[in-house]
Amino acid sequence: MQVGDRHYRTVWMEGGTVRMVEQNRLPFAFDIHACATYADTCDAIRTMVVRGAGAIGAAAGFALAQAALAAPARGFWPALDAARAAIEATRPTARNLFHATAAVYAAARAARDPRAAAVAEAGRLADADAASSLAIGRHGAALIDDGAGVATHCNAGWLAFVDHGTALAPVYAAHAAGRRCTVYVAETRPRGQGARLTAWELGQAGVDHVVVPDNAVAALMGQGRVDVMIVGADRIAANGDVANKIGTFEKALAAHALGVPFYVAAPLATIDAACPDGAAIPIEERDADEVIYQTGLTRDGRLETVRVCAPGSPAYNPAFDVTPARYVTGLVTEHGVVPASGAAIAALLAAHG
Amino acid sequence: MQVGDRHYRTVWMEGGTVRMVEQNRLPFAFDIHACATYADTCDAIRTMVVRGAGAIGAAAGFALAQAALAAPARGFWPALDAARAAIEATRPTARNLFHATAAVYAAARAARDPRAAAVAEAGRLADADAASSLAIGRHGAALIDDGAGVATHCNAGWLAFVDHGTALAPVYAAHAAGRRCTVYVAETRPRGQGARLTAWELGQAGVDHVVVPDNAVAALMGQGRVDVMIVGADRIAANGDVANKIGTFEKALAAHALGVPFYVAAPLATIDAACPDGAAIPIEERDADEVIYQTGLTRDGRLETVRVCAPGSPAYNPAFDVTPARYVTGLVTEHGVVPASGAAIAALLAAHG
Repeated sequence: MQVGDRHYRTVWMEGGTVRMVEQNRLPFAFDIHACATYADTCDAIRTMVVRGAGAIGAAAGFALAQAALAAPARGFWPALDAARAAIEATRPTARNLFHATAAVYAAARAARDPRAAAVAEAGRLADADAASSLAIGRHGAALIDDGAGVATHCNAGWLAFVDHGTALAPVYAAHAAGRRCTVYVAETRPRGQGARLTAWELGQAGVDHVVVPDNAVAALMGQGRVDVMIVGADRIAANGDVANKIGTFEKALAAHALGVPFYVAAPLATIDAACPDGAAIPIEERDADEVIYQTGLTRDGRLETVRVCAPGSPAYNPAFDVTPARYVTGLVTEHGVVPASGAAIAALLAAHG
Repeated sequence: MQVGDRHYRTVWMEGGTVRMVEQNRLPFAFDIHACATYADTCDAIRTMVVRGAGAIGAAAGFALAQAALAAPARGFWPALDAARAAIEATRPTARNLFHATAAVYAAARAARDPRAAAVAEAGRLADADAASSLAIGRHGAALIDDGAGVATHCNAGWLAFVDHGTALAPVYAAHAAGRRCTVYVAETRPRGQGARLTAWELGQAGVDHVVVPDNAVAALMGQGRVDVMIVGADRIAANGDVANKIGTFEKALAAHALGVPFYVAAPLATIDAACPDGAAIPIEERDADEVIYQTGLTRDGRLETVRVCAPGSPAYNPAFDVTPARYVTGLVTEHGVVPASGAAIAALLAAHG
């Protein structure tokens, strides 16, 4: 996507270095973070310099390619196995991460030159992610009429993928087609990816939007302001259950009760066919300090961290929740919009998986 | 309630001065704020030095008593009328505020010494608020079994009333009876009354609790951790619709979908018999800066305000929402637990109103 006068992808590889948009400093500073080794890239995934399903996947693929480039000829495979395990330990919920490491590893295994094959496959995965996001936007744009109110949660925009995004790709496509819409951006506590990243992206793209407290989404739906809600996914089970940012389930329940169509936009890489249902998806619990403290910009331009909870009180920080398939109106994939059902997902994977 | 070695009410009057716990500085500092004039008390209500249904009501009653004490003998009633209008303009959603100003005004009108009558009636209203909270706790404690998980939203504890509180009064009563429970405290963005005030209160009282992002409440319910949710109310319509802090509606929808009993605890003073249903309740929209900025304590002990939203993005800050009566399991009042229905409310008001 365009930032100022340049086109950026969220994450890319140049030689043995992985570069990425530094998302912890957005929206207050736009910096490019460089990872010289696969261990640096693991750190960047763990500390959420890069975050979001597709961007994590691409970064993980590049990390394994970095590991391949650095692994010694003698002991190459044990080194690659160890690197793969380290990469897969960074963020346990993200399906795309495991999809990417498996694909890069398999490409290396199958090739005469495993280093070149790993680099090529990681690059191909990143290109495929950008292409599938573009296709998701094309299919999903039909859900957004001129003048529509669109609600979203967290950030499933281009920053969460290699380019274009998933939940926001239909918004960008509708906007490009000249249709006006207003995006209600749930701020997405505790980390505020909505208020920080989605709002910043939409501002860069010139799309009308307004940040709302997570608490306000049901009220907006009750007032008839939301015509459709579109969110992303970190993992989709074979039966259509969806793991996504904490709060997604609550918004889906509200949408269901109030008759608002609720779509999940994700590429096939997010579907985990080996996972029968949501109960089998591991849910990452993150540090309570993400709830207890908030980081932001002071009036004199410094990043400062402040305590926003009562001293001495504990906090609980589940990073994701699972929305049962019955609350999902449909899945917006790169191959079209399909029901969130086991049968539809099986057919999709049989045709394109 | 006890803070350290002293018992405090949230708001009280000494001579012509109204004193109150300074809630904007909690939980980081415990200070008493003094209001020398009714205009000072209006400012304190507007800027939320004092907040919460019952505490606003008591403060409003005391403010009108202050105005009576200060009004000149000649032009007494025009002065009191002007003061009443100013007090009633501070927070449009809070039913208890209008209940208090009407009662103090009527007492003054009916008396030979309107000043003394206003002061006496304001004091009586504050005592009645504390007594009704205590009774709400006695009735509501039956909803909390030993070992229960209790969710709450915002702060309807003693800080929101003159003493004891409403939503938290059953927790305090169950705790005093030796029953253990864990309170899941929704942080309640944008102002964080859960994370700041409810967590602080529960910590002072030694009640097990954990602060959770507003987004996590449905997930906790889905995991079976929440046996009952109890919230307060800013105004209850004649049909049982409930206006309360933004996010209450979303939590009620989640509780309804997931089979969690959802109670609203409030004294009769919160019921507005003249308001037929929720659509007739005015909803206060507050400054977008409450969403865009967060204030908290720096690691070196200063209160600092930081921007947490993308610069240039607008925000929307509705302070309350309306939960339709059909999502409310029951109302916990000082006269017992009753259904949230027009018939039950009419019977309650006929017996005790």
